[in-house]
Amino acid sequence: MIEAAAGRLAGQARRTPLLGSPFLDEIARRRVLVKCENLQHTGSFKFRGAWSAVSALAPEVRARGVIAFSSGNHAQGVALAARRHGIGAVIVMPADAPRVKIENTRALGAEVVLYDRASEDRDAIGAKLATERSLTLIKPFDEPQVIAGQGTTGLEIAQQAAEEGVTEAEVLVCCGGGGLSSGIALALEGHAPGLRVRTVEPEGFGDVARSLASGRIERNLRLTGSLCDAIVTPEPGRITFPILQRLCGPGLAVSDDDALRAMALAFSRLRIVLEPGGAVALAAALFRPAEIAGETVIAVASGGNVDTDVFRLALDRFAG
Amino acid sequence: MIEAAAGRLAGQARRTPLLGSPFLDEIARRRVLVKCENLQHTGSFKFRGAWSAVSALAPEVRARGVIAFSSGNHAQGVALAARRHGIGAVIVMPADAPRVKIENTRALGAEVVLYDRASEDRDAIGAKLATERSLTLIKPFDEPQVIAGQGTTGLEIAQQAAEEGVTEAEVLVCCGGGGLSSGIALALEGHAPGLRVRTVEPEGFGDVARSLASGRIERNLRLTGSLCDAIVTPEPGRITFPILQRLCGPGLAVSDDDALRAMALAFSRLRIVLEPGGAVALAAALFRPAEIAGETVIAVASGGNVDTDVFRLALDRFAG
Repeated sequence: MIEAAAGRLAGQARRTPLLGSPFLDEIARRRVLVKCENLQHTGSFKFRGAWSAVSALAPEVRARGVIAFSSGNHAQGVALAARRHGIGAVIVMPADAPRVKIENTRALGAEVVLYDRASEDRDAIGAKLATERSLTLIKPFDEPQVIAGQGTTGLEIAQQAAEEGVTEAEVLVCCGGGGLSSGIALALEGHAPGLRVRTVEPEGFGDVARSLASGRIERNLRLTGSLCDAIVTPEPGRITFPILQRLCGPGLAVSDDDALRAMALAFSRLRIVLEPGGAVALAAALFRPAEIAGETVIAVASGGNVDTDVFRLALDRFAG
Repeated sequence: MIEAAAGRLAGQARRTPLLGSPFLDEIARRRVLVKCENLQHTGSFKFRGAWSAVSALAPEVRARGVIAFSSGNHAQGVALAARRHGIGAVIVMPADAPRVKIENTRALGAEVVLYDRASEDRDAIGAKLATERSLTLIKPFDEPQVIAGQGTTGLEIAQQAAEEGVTEAEVLVCCGGGGLSSGIALALEGHAPGLRVRTVEPEGFGDVARSLASGRIERNLRLTGSLCDAIVTPEPGRITFPILQRLCGPGLAVSDDDALRAMALAFSRLRIVLEPGGAVALAAALFRPAEIAGETVIAVASGGNVDTDVFRLALDRFAG
């Protein structure tokens, strides 16, 4: 399925670069390679899964349009995938999502329906719209075609790591519901068995790490209060978790401050823009050296849609 | 020579991505493609020319080491090229160069000699050091092997534009002494004759545009006072100017504010970090639509080594 998704994504998704810097290697005490999915269309890997899912629909189903729930990156991915297919997209977003993500989703042609996280039932709003208009729901992670699309990132990592002479490494992946992590893990299992995925989450929101440790799905106790909003989800997916359990090493977690520090270093050393949730894997690569094995670590930078004030915070605190 | 340089650069320079965004297309009123040389090793295209020149030296000459004058980007390019060849590099830099560039040049293993722009003679300092230690001078732009190295950017543009289906376009290039512009122009002449280079400079420092207009080398009246310090040079090169004259359209110029606005848009829409001098081509692509022809414009983003305060200025003024 991942290879088939790669075929459908050819000429649509960007082959994002794998960057590095001797300055980052020095901090991490090993070679650091960064897979720049912040440079993907719409600024995150989410376009891959969205395109994969939308392009896999039967034409007559697809023509009626799609619907998605998202605080931002999945929203933009689905909006662009729908627009490029010439179909409508309705995106149900929390009213407190980063402004830039709401604006971008609208500008990409989607109809944005805002709801209040505290008082309204997202699923009820979405179900009503979907039924009324016969829209197909594109889930953000717990959906095979979405996982297959995200997995195309792993095919590229396998190829680019080989080009760099790297055959053994841990691959750190920013993890919310596990779509990207499980997709990459499946791709690497087939194409680069010496590369092993480890999930990275914000501290205090480590549902995946706790689930991997206990062997069953554990929930986050709260869902707000992290700068890494993009990757905070209630629990790992029903489809993604067994994959993570079979293929991924122990989960890592980093603080908001470490994510901001990684953003500042990505700014100065790689000249790229990351959002906090997209920087946690790089943060773990740089600031958790004792918890990582091997001479090389690959960190997936998963997104770069950051409100200016949050980016300023990273510069003010950590860029000198 | 450009193709030979590309052979020597294979596996050394990065093939940088060609990015775009529907949001930028809307501003520019045509398709905008951005060649991201800010993502090149050391954060600018200068590594290409430096590697090309250092790798072309006879081994016994190279072994004695190299010397360069630079306010920053050429310095880092030469420092890394020398380090990867296992030879010494002395870099003569103005004491008021951006701090990050001085620090990075030192961290890349070069010996940095600072001089005062107002009171000291850079050339005399360099000549003395070169003679004493038998170092080879690597000029920043007016040197055939350096131009050939920068020209490899043009080979990639020709290939990547073809992949995007673009065969006719103006290629806007941030221009100081003309090494990058003339190298790209030569590469495109051979490999993509429908792509034509136009130089872009900071307003008030348009020596190349004035020289192209008058048909003879014109000097800048002053050399300080631009945020785009990286691309302010006294005059076009003796080798580069005839190439520019033969192959490049009328020169463009943009204000510091336009460069900062382009930096803010590159931040939010492409998720990349540009320095002011590296953003003038994108600024012209976005804000000078009436002076550009064709349905597609390609802008070369030439560098991303920016002091944090200058980047903050771009965000504060233009990123909302």
